[in-house]
Amino acid sequence: MNAEIVSVGTELLLGTSVNTDASDVSLALSELGINVFWHTVVGDNPARLTECLYRARTRADLIVTTGGLGPTCDDLTKQTLARAFGRELYFDEEAADTIRGWFAAQGRAFTENNLRQAWLPEGCTILPNDCGTAPGCLFESGGVTVAMLPGPPRECRAMLRNHLMPLLAELSGETIRSHMVRMFGIGESAMEEQLRDLMDGANPTVAPYAKTGECLVRVTAKAADADECEAMMAPVVEEVCRRMGDTVYGIDSNSLEDRVLELLVGRNMTIAAAESCTGGMVAQRLTAIPGASAVFRGGVTVYTEDAKCRLLGMEQKFIDRHGVVSAAVARRMAKRVRKILGSDLGVGITGWAGPDGDDVGLVYVALAAKGECFVRRLQLGKNSDRERIRTVAAHNAFDMARRYLTGLDI
Amino acid sequence: MNAEIVSVGTELLLGTSVNTDASDVSLALSELGINVFWHTVVGDNPARLTECLYRARTRADLIVTTGGLGPTCDDLTKQTLARAFGRELYFDEEAADTIRGWFAAQGRAFTENNLRQAWLPEGCTILPNDCGTAPGCLFESGGVTVAMLPGPPRECRAMLRNHLMPLLAELSGETIRSHMVRMFGIGESAMEEQLRDLMDGANPTVAPYAKTGECLVRVTAKAADADECEAMMAPVVEEVCRRMGDTVYGIDSNSLEDRVLELLVGRNMTIAAAESCTGGMVAQRLTAIPGASAVFRGGVTVYTEDAKCRLLGMEQKFIDRHGVVSAAVARRMAKRVRKILGSDLGVGITGWAGPDGDDVGLVYVALAAKGECFVRRLQLGKNSDRERIRTVAAHNAFDMARRYLTGLDI
Repeated sequence: MNAEIVSVGTELLLGTSVNTDASDVSLALSELGINVFWHTVVGDNPARLTECLYRARTRADLIVTTGGLGPTCDDLTKQTLARAFGRELYFDEEAADTIRGWFAAQGRAFTENNLRQAWLPEGCTILPNDCGTAPGCLFESGGVTVAMLPGPPRECRAMLRNHLMPLLAELSGETIRSHMVRMFGIGESAMEEQLRDLMDGANPTVAPYAKTGECLVRVTAKAADADECEAMMAPVVEEVCRRMGDTVYGIDSNSLEDRVLELLVGRNMTIAAAESCTGGMVAQRLTAIPGASAVFRGGVTVYTEDAKCRLLGMEQKFIDRHGVVSAAVARRMAKRVRKILGSDLGVGITGWAGPDGDDVGLVYVALAAKGECFVRRLQLGKNSDRERIRTVAAHNAFDMARRYLTGLDI
Repeated sequence: MNAEIVSVGTELLLGTSVNTDASDVSLALSELGINVFWHTVVGDNPARLTECLYRARTRADLIVTTGGLGPTCDDLTKQTLARAFGRELYFDEEAADTIRGWFAAQGRAFTENNLRQAWLPEGCTILPNDCGTAPGCLFESGGVTVAMLPGPPRECRAMLRNHLMPLLAELSGETIRSHMVRMFGIGESAMEEQLRDLMDGANPTVAPYAKTGECLVRVTAKAADADECEAMMAPVVEEVCRRMGDTVYGIDSNSLEDRVLELLVGRNMTIAAAESCTGGMVAQRLTAIPGASAVFRGGVTVYTEDAKCRLLGMEQKFIDRHGVVSAAVARRMAKRVRKILGSDLGVGITGWAGPDGDDVGLVYVALAAKGECFVRRLQLGKNSDRERIRTVAAHNAFDMARRYLTGLDI
């Protein structure tokens, strides 16, 4: 099955919005084993949208549009698609009730123009909007399946994952499942090197990705049902994990910090952080996860030497003796914050994030636990930018915690 | 002038990368007064890229490609464009030297395949790459201007801003300048309402944008030279500022926290933060700015009641009496962190970030200064997500600080 994604919205052509919808839809279709050969962006312009649709239907089996389903005059996707594919629009009473109900539930004033969203192409399948008012829809015309999703990324993603993907999987008569293996402590090319033969497989597929400082592998299987998919994936996931060893920190985890939080909850343990160059990033990432309060005891951002003394009770003499960016200072920060906040684990991070200075990229990350304290010296490169240095330093703190909590060498 | 953006890269069609290049280029072209009617994404596939170029040159005066300029076999943009526009490629010795020099400067091992990047279309203007190895280029063919930019967003953005935009401005015989007016404390529709007549202007143009919790207006002028541009913009920027009053926090600032940092530096003052629901976001945003150490004394993330007691010396009885999310607790947090860290200003934030709970979205933000303490009660909506609540709460802390520092009511 070949697909084409058409995104509608003048804000995309003006550059004031980034087209994340197209990548979300692409990723979902890849998971379903559907090839995507083109993305096109057009403005809120019926003539250009029609031109684009006429071309798309000559070369694609599936056209997915994003955007242009809202209640304002600019939102012309449904009308234009209905006309291009020879369908009438009808007023769907049920969709109208859903829209009215949404406003009531939100306690927002309902305006009549919102009912424009209840006009839908005849004979379509409605795709419910779990995060907003504009319903999407799906219909088939002359061998081409057409799906319309809303533009706001949150709405688009929810409709895609919750409603469109199951229908497309059904259409193809196949079920698709995937697992994401996540790693830390290995480079992208080293990972690819070790998995190259697995990446040649057609079903399950094995696809590598890289993100700042970490690596991911997605394993995807197609089969008649979910059980069969899982059975096909199990040996491949196992083989990936065997080869990648303890760099694997999670399967289907969202992030290193999610994994750490999960491990801490499972062991009924707590953590605290003292951050210098990361400036609160460890705290911020942990507290971005709902439920963090159960395990995160708190943190201090001790960006200056004075703050290290005031908040952690460190002595200026000690800092002067070792240098503020040193293993000794990182260790002391980790131990002190652990003690002050009464947590099981304490993180201490000190380093030069740049952009100026001779030692930009040099960071020490310490993890204090009962009776022991570990430290990593990182050299993150003079050409790294500030944000990358901070992000990778925080990654390392989480990685040390997850290794400690799972009994691995740190 | 009408432009079309063609992005080349299989990773975009797989959805593993988001096409930020297209929005960066779009935004830049909008600033130059160039209309963008289409974005197209194709994979690393010469046939489809050629098809796309043939179509683009029938409807655009300017084609900007992004991606496919690297040293690997997938990188086929230059070859394909040269063929499509009937140009030969030649080996540019100077470009080759630049590439070799880049590797030497970075201390990285040079491999011969990198010299593929020194093959360029005959008669082109080279666009230097300030952040990487692949040069871009610009040429004219049959009335169509073609520009090629690299795919990595940092490289693309630098080449676009530093080298392509000046050339395009020159081509058009005009100079373009713009200013960004940034506001906090007004909604997008209210802002548009008040600026509607200005938005009808053709030169200078006035274009509004919205970001999470804040509003922006870009004023852009075209003229023969920079001085004339500035002279044309001055009264318009002044009028925007007059109408928007003290919601305007900066002209050409990067962000609220940048403005606060600048104000603190100018007044030789310092700040510290005690954060509950924002979990370190205020600290993290301030320390993301180089030079923050001069004004940011440090922060505490006191996510739990216990941490509020241990790090800020608050009493459990006090918290019990007022409730942990209360104006009194926010005030006390701001005052205590200010005192403990010896800063001029102290921020205290406490609230419910959700997703669960009856009062999700209720946040108190306090600002303590010498002899006074201010507090804002925010109701950020039960349907807001956790990230939005945290972001807007942090925005408010920065807004209160900038209002205090500029002598405005808080």
